Amino acid sequence: MKLFSSVNDVKDVTALVAEALHLKQDPYAYQHLGKNKTLCLVFLNPSLRTRISTQKAGINLGMNVIVLNIDKEGWALELQDNVIMNGTTVEHIKEAAAVMGEYADIIGVRSFPGLKDREEDYSENIFNKFVEYCGVPVVSLESATRHPLQSLADLVTIQELKTISRPKVVLTWAPHIKALPQAVPNSFAEWMCKADVDFTIAHPAGYELATEFTQGANITHNQNEALKEADFIYVKNWSAYEPYGQVLPGNEDWMLNNKKLEVAPDAKVMHCLPVRRNLELADEILDSARSVVIHEAGNRVWAAQAVLKQMLEAL
Amino acid sequence: MKLFSSVNDVKDVTALVAEALHLKQDPYAYQHLGKNKTLCLVFLNPSLRTRISTQKAGINLGMNVIVLNIDKEGWALELQDNVIMNGTTVEHIKEAAAVMGEYADIIGVRSFPGLKDREEDYSENIFNKFVEYCGVPVVSLESATRHPLQSLADLVTIQELKTISRPKVVLTWAPHIKALPQAVPNSFAEWMCKADVDFTIAHPAGYELATEFTQGANITHNQNEALKEADFIYVKNWSAYEPYGQVLPGNEDWMLNNKKLEVAPDAKVMHCLPVRRNLELADEILDSARSVVIHEAGNRVWAAQAVLKQMLEAL
Amino acid sequence: MKLFSSVNDVKDVTALVAEALHLKQDPYAYQHLGKNKTLCLVFLNPSLRTRISTQKAGINLGMNVIVLNIDKEGWALELQDNVIMNGTTVEHIKEAAAVMGEYADIIGVRSFPGLKDREEDYSENIFNKFVEYCGVPVVSLESATRHPLQSLADLVTIQELKTISRPKVVLTWAPHIKALPQAVPNSFAEWMCKADVDFTIAHPAGYELATEFTQGANITHNQNEALKEADFIYVKNWSAYEPYGQVLPGNEDWMLNNKKLEVAPDAKVMHCLPVRRNLELADEILDSARSVVIHEAGNRVWAAQAVLKQMLEAL
Repeated sequence: MKLFSSVNDVKDVTALVAEALHLKQDPYAYQHLGKNKTLCLVFLNPSLRTRISTQKAGINLGMNVIVLNIDKEGWALELQDNVIMNGTTVEHIKEAAAVMGEYADIIGVRSFPGLKDREEDYSENIFNKFVEYCGVPVVSLESATRHPLQSLADLVTIQELKTISRPKVVLTWAPHIKALPQAVPNSFAEWMCKADVDFTIAHPAGYELATEFTQGANITHNQNEALKEADFIYVKNWSAYEPYGQVLPGNEDWMLNNKKLEVAPDAKVMHCLPVRRNLELADEILDSARSVVIHEAGNRVWAAQAVLKQMLEAL
Repeated sequence: MKLFSSVNDVKDVTALVAEALHLKQDPYAYQHLGKNKTLCLVFLNPSLRTRISTQKAGINLGMNVIVLNIDKEGWALELQDNVIMNGTTVEHIKEAAAVMGEYADIIGVRSFPGLKDREEDYSENIFNKFVEYCGVPVVSLESATRHPLQSLADLVTIQELKTISRPKVVLTWAPHIKALPQAVPNSFAEWMCKADVDFTIAHPAGYELATEFTQGANITHNQNEALKEADFIYVKNWSAYEPYGQVLPGNEDWMLNNKKLEVAPDAKVMHCLPVRRNLELADEILDSARSVVIHEAGNRVWAAQAVLKQMLEAL
Repeated sequence: MKLFSSVNDVKDVTALVAEALHLKQDPYAYQHLGKNKTLCLVFLNPSLRTRISTQKAGINLGMNVIVLNIDKEGWALELQDNVIMNGTTVEHIKEAAAVMGEYADIIGVRSFPGLKDREEDYSENIFNKFVEYCGVPVVSLESATRHPLQSLADLVTIQELKTISRPKVVLTWAPHIKALPQAVPNSFAEWMCKADVDFTIAHPAGYELATEFTQGANITHNQNEALKEADFIYVKNWSAYEPYGQVLPGNEDWMLNNKKLEVAPDAKVMHCLPVRRNLELADEILDSARSVVIHEAGNRVWAAQAVLKQMLEAL
């Protein structure tokens, strides 16, 4: 693998999930692969799970891992081409990416969307420029429109915990006070559409995701109907795609609680974290046995390790 | 050892000091213990000595060490239970701690007190929540009310440098312009009260420490009397316990200088650092042979390594 | 080697360049040298290339590398002697340096000049205090007046890419909107003056460098004349030495572009990076085959590794 930015970069999704679960059983079996190889993780935004789990995945594979909070520890990046850099940006992403490609065998990049200009965000300008200029394999640590390591860990979690061969999986929108990216729901949707699950998306009117991510999903505005007999319920807020980046009034009643789960008595509840308690998801669920959010976060290591292993094998 | 938050977590203080001094002689003898083990150090506040010495201690034991400045690199933490998280905090400490427990074999946490609400600080809410939710052994890197790795290093230093079997040790309050926590003096006091030393605390009226830390100590407001014939003088500022977190007017004459040391001609002078020169402690002492502050800071490595070794052995 | 702060600390420049090129061919041959040795990299300012390349150099040599952004992660440093520390600084550089010397076998320090007080900057107060108080070998990661790891990498690059035995090397001033240090041009000049090259410095009137760095160089205000038949053109902005730290009006026409390069058809173009595109250097050059800036940045690893190897051998 040379690039991991979406489910479309994966030749065999089932095999990648199996690889992750194999690594979970035997984490240190491939330390020879990463010997004297450098993984450079570049963050333009905060990160807890992705930061630590990907560091650990690299270390488990014997790699040297270098972390850079580029805007705080390095230089403010210029992202546009053909400009006279006489403002506040100090280094063009062309140079920053190419230089890191000199030092790293594999690069991970996190870059959130601005949520102001949909065309700019959905062009994946920053992430794609890193890929274009660094000259080494790149793994997305969440880009403007996708979070594929999260989605792979989510699928690993479903594969591990499912009790029937084709579980019902529901992605349900949740309330929030801030405008959040569509990256996690986009990504979760496109992975579920490729997996052997019965997949439904529930959200209030106005929160339609871009259709390129949801081909094959059932989509409804009726949360109660969607949740019925669900095996896995994935809770996540996102801002509107149209009008882009907006938080629409109302919909506070979409927060998941035990009452709503009465129609899905066996459902396990997932969330990518961080989660705002009692705004997105009630304490009574997060503190119960049906929440698998911590287990899911733990699987981030094995998802990252499976991807890095395939990249190391292809070097 | 599963928890290192105070002297009360240590079964045998003398043996732990001996372990630290043994590791100082033979730092790399136990690298098999930490192989493929991850130490995650979480900072909510600045750190120089604790940060580097604990990293080094983990590395000396063969561990992989991951450092996280959680509020800057991760997400702003919510600390209160049963709240609707519709403000500025993004992740509840319950999730943050539990997730880190998925990635780490041992966690270190630094969290300073707010110095506004004594009950809140002395409940050790943040540190205890990490312990409660992370599910792995936790070492305090300084919490609201204690700094046990510092105190262990202090005792190691006294053990190394003492010339009589039961030395006289004096903790003397020093002036400062800011309100500082009581963590270092609390902790130093409770460790000295368990050690084989003659222990005196000197401070101006109004700077009484909480009595739970000072059982068995001589306590006086007469600095000159306290210093007489001291073998070790530990200099430290702290803010008042009652009224909590206040800096009381006056007392600038408590700064230690050579003149005051005339009554203790053989005393070695200690400080946990950072120290404000010529406010807490005079240049003439810090730049003299009787200051052992750098040696003391060096011993932070062996204190941390002794604790981590006992935790690794108990995994 | 015990100190690497300028070309004057190098016994044999030619041999050091050869060492770097040897390490480039065989990066992992000396991992025994760094086993159980700690490299501590201390940053008072941002860094991308120096930060990552020096980490990688240490790791290639088998060292443990600890990075500290001291003012953000540690404590605000006091730099002046004999002051009462009752202001905003929390720790004196004397203690900070000495404590790090307890933890590290080799220390790297980056500290930029203030550009307000020439005497202060050119005294190298911060860097020299680290050297004086830490007690272990120190490598400059760029100080107020020099950037020797950059200059060594530059010379390595020239040695690698030159097609005649004594190439013509031109350092040409470039426009900028901010006042930048003289460290890179000072350092480049003093290294070139010791190397077997024909060396010219071109800059507008008023941008004379301190003469201690330029002994033996041809110096001119005529950029076009300087560039003629150049083999290597090193582009860099700097602020005036006299009046110190000033940006003088005009001189925008000093930006290098293809038109100017007509007189030097075979010249390779160098820059230490970060570079402000179309202000210091035109896109048409940076995006062309004659730019070697990325290759040059890649050589930072081997320059750092050569220096660290000589320091490890002298421990």
